[in-house]
Amino acid sequence: MLTISDRGRLMPPSPIRKLVPFAEAAKKKGLKVYHLNIGQPDIETPPSILDAVRNADIRVLEYSHSAGNESYRRKLVKYYASVGINVSPDQIIITTGGSEAIMFGFFACLNPGDEVIIPEPFYANYNGFAVAAGVKVVPITSNIDNGFALPPITEFEKVITDKTKAIVVCSPNNPTGYLYSPSEMEALKTICLKHHLYLFSDEAYREFCYSGEYYSAMHLPDMDEHVVLMDTISKRYSACGARLGAFVTKNKTVYEAAMKFAQARLSPPGLAQIMGEAAVDLPASYFDQPRSEYMERRDLLVKRLNAMPGVFCPNPGGAFYAMAKLPVEDSDHFCQWLLESFSHDNKTVMLAPATGFYGTPGLGRNEVRLAYVLNLKDLDEAMNCLEKALEVYPGKEG
Amino acid sequence: MLTISDRGRLMPPSPIRKLVPFAEAAKKKGLKVYHLNIGQPDIETPPSILDAVRNADIRVLEYSHSAGNESYRRKLVKYYASVGINVSPDQIIITTGGSEAIMFGFFACLNPGDEVIIPEPFYANYNGFAVAAGVKVVPITSNIDNGFALPPITEFEKVITDKTKAIVVCSPNNPTGYLYSPSEMEALKTICLKHHLYLFSDEAYREFCYSGEYYSAMHLPDMDEHVVLMDTISKRYSACGARLGAFVTKNKTVYEAAMKFAQARLSPPGLAQIMGEAAVDLPASYFDQPRSEYMERRDLLVKRLNAMPGVFCPNPGGAFYAMAKLPVEDSDHFCQWLLESFSHDNKTVMLAPATGFYGTPGLGRNEVRLAYVLNLKDLDEAMNCLEKALEVYPGKEG
Repeated sequence: MLTISDRGRLMPPSPIRKLVPFAEAAKKKGLKVYHLNIGQPDIETPPSILDAVRNADIRVLEYSHSAGNESYRRKLVKYYASVGINVSPDQIIITTGGSEAIMFGFFACLNPGDEVIIPEPFYANYNGFAVAAGVKVVPITSNIDNGFALPPITEFEKVITDKTKAIVVCSPNNPTGYLYSPSEMEALKTICLKHHLYLFSDEAYREFCYSGEYYSAMHLPDMDEHVVLMDTISKRYSACGARLGAFVTKNKTVYEAAMKFAQARLSPPGLAQIMGEAAVDLPASYFDQPRSEYMERRDLLVKRLNAMPGVFCPNPGGAFYAMAKLPVEDSDHFCQWLLESFSHDNKTVMLAPATGFYGTPGLGRNEVRLAYVLNLKDLDEAMNCLEKALEVYPGKEG
Repeated sequence: MLTISDRGRLMPPSPIRKLVPFAEAAKKKGLKVYHLNIGQPDIETPPSILDAVRNADIRVLEYSHSAGNESYRRKLVKYYASVGINVSPDQIIITTGGSEAIMFGFFACLNPGDEVIIPEPFYANYNGFAVAAGVKVVPITSNIDNGFALPPITEFEKVITDKTKAIVVCSPNNPTGYLYSPSEMEALKTICLKHHLYLFSDEAYREFCYSGEYYSAMHLPDMDEHVVLMDTISKRYSACGARLGAFVTKNKTVYEAAMKFAQARLSPPGLAQIMGEAAVDLPASYFDQPRSEYMERRDLLVKRLNAMPGVFCPNPGGAFYAMAKLPVEDSDHFCQWLLESFSHDNKTVMLAPATGFYGTPGLGRNEVRLAYVLNLKDLDEAMNCLEKALEVYPGKEG
């Protein structure tokens, strides 16, 4: 008998994409669907970085160095210095999106059966990389009622075993928008040093901080051996489709192990590296416009949500996501119902049910994630839809 | 103590790249180095496919579908039909190079501890993906003396255990250039059907067949459930840096498992997909020029090699590699010596020692792989270097 692998069976399908067939059916019926379900921004990719590809003089599109073009890594050193991170080109591996950086970290540092602690709700694809690597995700719960602050050190220590090898953090956070404070980052440092853990830091949303300052895991002193930075240009320059990221660490042994995985896949995407290199030349002021745009959207979204009866949305400090508690029994059902059975002025809204972002079964059943990736007008319309929907939805709480 | 993973330790460094520091040192000394060590062709990337990217109207470079753009998959259906492979768009997952297609196959089909049989010498990076997936590579030896023909079925059956799950083949082959005959492909089918094995077929060099016809694993009747095609545009259109490939199977369960791995990494490179789509529009005659160019190079290379005392090079039927037996004790030492201690008219040549392509320790010690990726004039000069080197090399056989 031909059988697929256990990990092939266990691999979770994308929770964000599982409602896609219902959205497609809604569109076929003629409905306009506002997509707040996925982190695909509508912000324009900077034309100059696309022009860099257009104007590149390429006779043969060759493999690059497995760590990425040295010229790009040198540029990234300048970029990282601009955000207070001091690294050298040989501490950077250019990756195929942030995804591959996560994969390299898991595969280079963790054995099958090892455990990683991740504050939940968390980016659902960490589950996928964990299954691929045979690693166990141990969630510790952060709570919507205090805006998803980092759980106290004691909560981490309750779940640390001799299999625990790493903590994964993402700040500003997907899906909560929470921005870890310097003292929370210090707490993570304390745990990692005491228990000899890696700190995998996903900083995809670094540029989008609204309440408080960005604080990188790489800013933590005495943590050089522990920190692995998993980065991407996807959100920074609204270039998700480029598939360009970076794996950054000062731990030489980890770097060398990751490099062997990088060599096996030969090189990261070549055209995207031209874009990435040009992006470092954008003026620092480039981020002002998207940041203020996102901030206005956040303010509108949070205000609209909290004005709806029974809805609670803590104010996210960064990224472009918000989590909201809704007065519904089952947000998976509600999100499907929005696409299948509801419309308002021939429109509806697509949200991501929060259950997919929790590792603990049963959590998040009355929560949704909203990505504020649409312009203010569309976002406002989407909120009109949600408001009307909650008025008529038959599966209300209690 | 912070430790890296076992697979991080076990992961083999690239055998092709390990001599790079010696090549860099040779260049610093002012030597011209002819690179026959790596499969990076000098053939021009078709300008029209780069123009397709230059002319693309992109406002936001968005994530594509995790299986790749549907428009590209539809085009690929046409391309595959042109080589006698009948598939539908939902049997194709666009991947980040052929590398990711290999990875999806290993991860979706094989458990840690499972065994894959691969005729050796084989593409060295299969080892890397096997270590990443926890899979054991079981080599069976093909021999330079009969031009690396497929070992007989009895050799396969000697090593098949209850852990054997798949056979990996590559035809035309890297590193041998061997082109499997229809009867050899039939033999593989017999083994796979009898022992319930997947047939992973790496067909990166399909377009470059010189002696005999290309015969795909997908041409085999009754093998739909067994065959996983691992493909790439890297060599087809001399676009190695694009990082664009395809995972193709008619086995729905395998496809769906692989799709979950594809969803976890979100999408394949976006700009490269525009190139790939444009490439399908190249006229069938496009391949005539590179094919005849490679064939001339092969003919020159094989003739020059076999004219050198003690050298034997079987005539490769396809791809752009040749394996040669040299009158040396240790080709690793010889290849390093070429870079460190030899020059002819201020030039030298870089070759890949064959040991890295064998799974059985000790094999290939007097063989090298030569990639005929340079133009005829350079190739001829490189052969002059090799000829002179063999005359003066102190580590000759016997």
